[in-house]
Amino acid sequence: MAVKTHTVEVGYDEFCGALAAKDLQPLWTQSGKLMPKQPRPTTVPWLWKWDTIFALAERAGELITVKRGGDRRVLALANPGLDGQPYTSSTLWGAIQYLGPRESAPAHRHTPSAIRFVMQGEGVWTTVNGDSCEMRPGDLVLTPNWAWHDHHNEGDSPMVWFDGLDLPFVGMMEAVFFENHPDLRQPITDHNGSERRYGGRALRTRSIGGPLPHSPLLRYPWAETDRALAETLAAEGGPMVSLEYTNPLDGRPAIPTFSSEMHRLAPGGHTRPHRKVGSSVYVVHHGNGTTIVNGQRFDWSPGDIFVTPSWSIVEHQSAEQADLFSISDRPILQALHLYREAELEEPQEVIATFEPK
Amino acid sequence: MAVKTHTVEVGYDEFCGALAAKDLQPLWTQSGKLMPKQPRPTTVPWLWKWDTIFALAERAGELITVKRGGDRRVLALANPGLDGQPYTSSTLWGAIQYLGPRESAPAHRHTPSAIRFVMQGEGVWTTVNGDSCEMRPGDLVLTPNWAWHDHHNEGDSPMVWFDGLDLPFVGMMEAVFFENHPDLRQPITDHNGSERRYGGRALRTRSIGGPLPHSPLLRYPWAETDRALAETLAAEGGPMVSLEYTNPLDGRPAIPTFSSEMHRLAPGGHTRPHRKVGSSVYVVHHGNGTTIVNGQRFDWSPGDIFVTPSWSIVEHQSAEQADLFSISDRPILQALHLYREAELEEPQEVIATFEPK
Amino acid sequence: MAVKTHTVEVGYDEFCGALAAKDLQPLWTQSGKLMPKQPRPTTVPWLWKWDTIFALAERAGELITVKRGGDRRVLALANPGLDGQPYTSSTLWGAIQYLGPRESAPAHRHTPSAIRFVMQGEGVWTTVNGDSCEMRPGDLVLTPNWAWHDHHNEGDSPMVWFDGLDLPFVGMMEAVFFENHPDLRQPITDHNGSERRYGGRALRTRSIGGPLPHSPLLRYPWAETDRALAETLAAEGGPMVSLEYTNPLDGRPAIPTFSSEMHRLAPGGHTRPHRKVGSSVYVVHHGNGTTIVNGQRFDWSPGDIFVTPSWSIVEHQSAEQADLFSISDRPILQALHLYREAELEEPQEVIATFEPK
Amino acid sequence: MAVKTHTVEVGYDEFCGALAAKDLQPLWTQSGKLMPKQPRPTTVPWLWKWDTIFALAERAGELITVKRGGDRRVLALANPGLDGQPYTSSTLWGAIQYLGPRESAPAHRHTPSAIRFVMQGEGVWTTVNGDSCEMRPGDLVLTPNWAWHDHHNEGDSPMVWFDGLDLPFVGMMEAVFFENHPDLRQPITDHNGSERRYGGRALRTRSIGGPLPHSPLLRYPWAETDRALAETLAAEGGPMVSLEYTNPLDGRPAIPTFSSEMHRLAPGGHTRPHRKVGSSVYVVHHGNGTTIVNGQRFDWSPGDIFVTPSWSIVEHQSAEQADLFSISDRPILQALHLYREAELEEPQEVIATFEPK
Repeated sequence: MAVKTHTVEVGYDEFCGALAAKDLQPLWTQSGKLMPKQPRPTTVPWLWKWDTIFALAERAGELITVKRGGDRRVLALANPGLDGQPYTSSTLWGAIQYLGPRESAPAHRHTPSAIRFVMQGEGVWTTVNGDSCEMRPGDLVLTPNWAWHDHHNEGDSPMVWFDGLDLPFVGMMEAVFFENHPDLRQPITDHNGSERRYGGRALRTRSIGGPLPHSPLLRYPWAETDRALAETLAAEGGPMVSLEYTNPLDGRPAIPTFSSEMHRLAPGGHTRPHRKVGSSVYVVHHGNGTTIVNGQRFDWSPGDIFVTPSWSIVEHQSAEQADLFSISDRPILQALHLYREAELEEPQEVIATFEPK
Repeated sequence: MAVKTHTVEVGYDEFCGALAAKDLQPLWTQSGKLMPKQPRPTTVPWLWKWDTIFALAERAGELITVKRGGDRRVLALANPGLDGQPYTSSTLWGAIQYLGPRESAPAHRHTPSAIRFVMQGEGVWTTVNGDSCEMRPGDLVLTPNWAWHDHHNEGDSPMVWFDGLDLPFVGMMEAVFFENHPDLRQPITDHNGSERRYGGRALRTRSIGGPLPHSPLLRYPWAETDRALAETLAAEGGPMVSLEYTNPLDGRPAIPTFSSEMHRLAPGGHTRPHRKVGSSVYVVHHGNGTTIVNGQRFDWSPGDIFVTPSWSIVEHQSAEQADLFSISDRPILQALHLYREAELEEPQEVIATFEPK
Repeated sequence: MAVKTHTVEVGYDEFCGALAAKDLQPLWTQSGKLMPKQPRPTTVPWLWKWDTIFALAERAGELITVKRGGDRRVLALANPGLDGQPYTSSTLWGAIQYLGPRESAPAHRHTPSAIRFVMQGEGVWTTVNGDSCEMRPGDLVLTPNWAWHDHHNEGDSPMVWFDGLDLPFVGMMEAVFFENHPDLRQPITDHNGSERRYGGRALRTRSIGGPLPHSPLLRYPWAETDRALAETLAAEGGPMVSLEYTNPLDGRPAIPTFSSEMHRLAPGGHTRPHRKVGSSVYVVHHGNGTTIVNGQRFDWSPGDIFVTPSWSIVEHQSAEQADLFSISDRPILQALHLYREAELEEPQEVIATFEPK
Repeated sequence: MAVKTHTVEVGYDEFCGALAAKDLQPLWTQSGKLMPKQPRPTTVPWLWKWDTIFALAERAGELITVKRGGDRRVLALANPGLDGQPYTSSTLWGAIQYLGPRESAPAHRHTPSAIRFVMQGEGVWTTVNGDSCEMRPGDLVLTPNWAWHDHHNEGDSPMVWFDGLDLPFVGMMEAVFFENHPDLRQPITDHNGSERRYGGRALRTRSIGGPLPHSPLLRYPWAETDRALAETLAAEGGPMVSLEYTNPLDGRPAIPTFSSEMHRLAPGGHTRPHRKVGSSVYVVHHGNGTTIVNGQRFDWSPGDIFVTPSWSIVEHQSAEQADLFSISDRPILQALHLYREAELEEPQEVIATFEPK
């Protein structure tokens, strides 16, 4: 046996070299890493402070010109766990976009879908397939898969918004296409037209054809979201209510590849510990509070952005009423029967506090 | 041959008698009637005048008490083609319901679904599964399949509304169930709650479970419908725009067994001749105009109700802006791949004018 | 009060006359009939004996020529409850079709869909949209909505099959279209082609486009059904197993407007009392047994046909293994959220035995 | 201006450092890489020769023991473009599994789904959720998401099969769960039971509940696939026919996250150049031929395995009849509206020939 073992070991090393030479890899040496008992995300829980990102965005406003070829002034929130990639989680892109007074970001389109959640500023319009959509704080504006879009600041102050995209996912699927519009500005055919035609009612024109790949409604104004949050909280009670932005024609997520949601924590609310497959990126819209992720405490204020990885245990709490916008990859997981979630009985023990850079 | 023919004829009569005695019927004698080249509806085009039906409804208000056992004061629009049945078309029930000041129609539920389209009056509430829904002229209120419902007039004037039901269809399917509520009035748990929670936005609470058999939104107020008609007419142009009332959670018809629609004719509008499988019942909400059905002219004014049979050729026209509410059995036909429609090139020649009784 | 009552009564009679004169009907006098507590089908449970119908079919074979204009030699099973209509239930058409040696039934198409379940004979082919489908006892052949079809007996003996159609339903919907083919026989482009391409496997050609309104598989041979019944009975156990014929591309009913099913009773099997909304028509394929419907006993033998009305309580039993083919309107009811079913605890007491004519 | 430029440049470098220090990244420096005009896959076209992989698999059979903790003797086909990851494309895992006589691979389950396509050998059974499925050359056996599975060689010769998994995709979604069965072998409750109950017919037991996340049919025997290929080729003609393995209950892909397909090239067939978003891994089942990918020629023989990256231009050709099995990530792309494909007019010019290692 000893001899045989010896022989085997010698043979084994040679054998592994032979495999590598032929572009083959043994499973048995890495099955635990490839198939862990439960998700081992490389995404780490992280938080970016508004003061920091806003100051750098302002500085970018001085240094960087928005023009064709450098179409957007965007600071990507790069998760430290992702090995230098400019992604916020393994599937989601979160970033800050800054557009100065009288600036325009030129027209293009791409297969990754985007949402814009307005954080600060007035006077910006995003044109999506000819429809010029107003942007005000708390508004959500969609620029879906392959829709032409350009942004214009017609006011005197800068605007900052959060960009949420499925770019890491679409990139991994090797499905990214990109095209510049022949003109810097696409022609405008309507103003807030999608909202007038599809917003605010359960009535449908019969001229709509078959199922659309994304919502025909492109703008979800904050005033409506705010009212809906208040009514839902009144009806369902706390500690937190969650609303999902949907396609008004079929009730599905507004964007098929990621969800957009708005959460309202009641004053004094503390949610039960919850975990789910898939990551989320949160933008603090109103209020100060705390989120505990896998025992680590993240304190947040308006404008802060944080990320929760797949299968992490998450609790939100705040002494005052607070509103959190979020995106997540749940629609992909649900469409493919890979979604799981669980609620835990006991609150987590806080074992560390995150110190933002 | 002659002998054989003779023998056959004698045998044939005896044979038909033998068939009948055994509850059998020959197809070959009636195949043309059973399988016509195109639909031969028994429903006839017809129109009821508001003045007539309102006067009789008022008289009913004097004569008839609304109470358990005679739960509703309803005048059914009985199509003369349907052999004495109280149906407006072969699949649709249309009727006028009259509720006097301080009257209540007791709580019950049934598998036929109903919509209520308010024609005149103020101060009535319909409670549907605990949610008390306000009723004002032009509002649509749903009382879906197996939902508890009762009506209460808390004002000082009578209300008249149009009842649309799938009762002929559900009856034909032998699927009617009916139940009285233990109390004359069901408990009220909310006021216009469905509208607050599902109306006026494309946001969904995650607490909603699987697909619902009907819209969770129970009231569609006229102000919203009016605004949507105006915006759609501005965007799409005339001669007529049509909006369908939908389930905000999935974009399907608000009631699965029949559609509810609102049409706005632009001033001077004249629609192209159109035919479709299935019948429609129209209620004139605003405006004076004319509808031509199979060459017969129907002049209408506010409050008039008329019916168009399956595969009839229909054109609408009016000199002034006009609003027509309608119900139709199209969702059933579409779900079962039996729907067809066609547009004709040439306007119809008017060969007769309908004289209302 | 007495005076008032008197006045009312006089007024009421006049009032009812006034309503009728204006094509209006009061609901309050007939609401119990229109809205019964549970379905009150006009369809009555009934049974036709094979010996009787076969003898009359043979006689029809002598007396009636199959030709254009009298396209089919069909004896409809006319339910005595349906007021002289040639329908087996309020929604379903059941009939016997007889085709003599060397006869052909000319090509036509119609929007009502049909299934053919072969009861006796060999050598007949039904051409459906160019595909010539073999017919043998126990086979199911589809002639769906608007598919061209003609039948040809190329053998020396007659064939008898059961025709199941949705004609009463499609007629009620006023959606019947019918067209004769320009030729008595449509051109044949394939033999059992649908079966070769879609039968017997879970493999799909990518050249299939979107959803089809009916199964592309047109023939379901008895040998496969028999084997599936045996395997299912072995796997699930008795007293009875039921298989539904489906569209292999989407798993839905082979015909969207009615189900086709085959049931195998194990020897000594006795099913629990069951009721469902909607009617069924059964064809006895093998075995002798008994079905109890609302306390009435129906004894059956091969070739017998019987009908169970909506919401009737049904139990099947047989001492020997028995196979029952059936059609039902369940798909319509399920698509429209009108289906209900219930199982009863206690077997029914038999209070009468049906005496076939 | 020069001064300003200078200032900017100094400021810009400092600024970039400040961004990095705060876990932010500029988009404008990398937008071309992140958003290319069309997919730039890192996956490279590649081919592994059967002789090579089989010899190494045999050697692994001598060196490696299959046991709990090293559950499988698997050689992963590691695409040289993927930076050392053991993946065949960015979304697909392709591998060779070798099971010697009388060996067993212990029971476990995981959320990545797998298919097994048998390349060589007899006498192996894979137990999937209690159903013991026979494996013969050309058979496809599914071990879907979270299904218990173990493999047993009860014969005297080794078996080699191809493993196809969605592991790179599920890993990227951070959705991998894995669990060992308490026993090395799970209890066996049936043999080829799924095939008996769901294979070979369009009949469904009513006892099936709602939609399943994967096919209930677990084994697709080669004899059926071969017959279906022959019939489809006869019906549709060449140069190539493609069949997709489906879930017999709903016609969707057998596994929701990747397609399994079998292609038959007619003798002398040469397909038109085609490109699609998403990658494919091909296993040569029968025949010798050539595939041209982006101008590079890959010659193949039975047992060879090759990969085509996203948006690569692909043509297949062979002088003799040839059968290619493949998996692809198309179902994910289609579910999320990210799929595109195109056919090119002109055959590619061959500019290089791949030299296998």
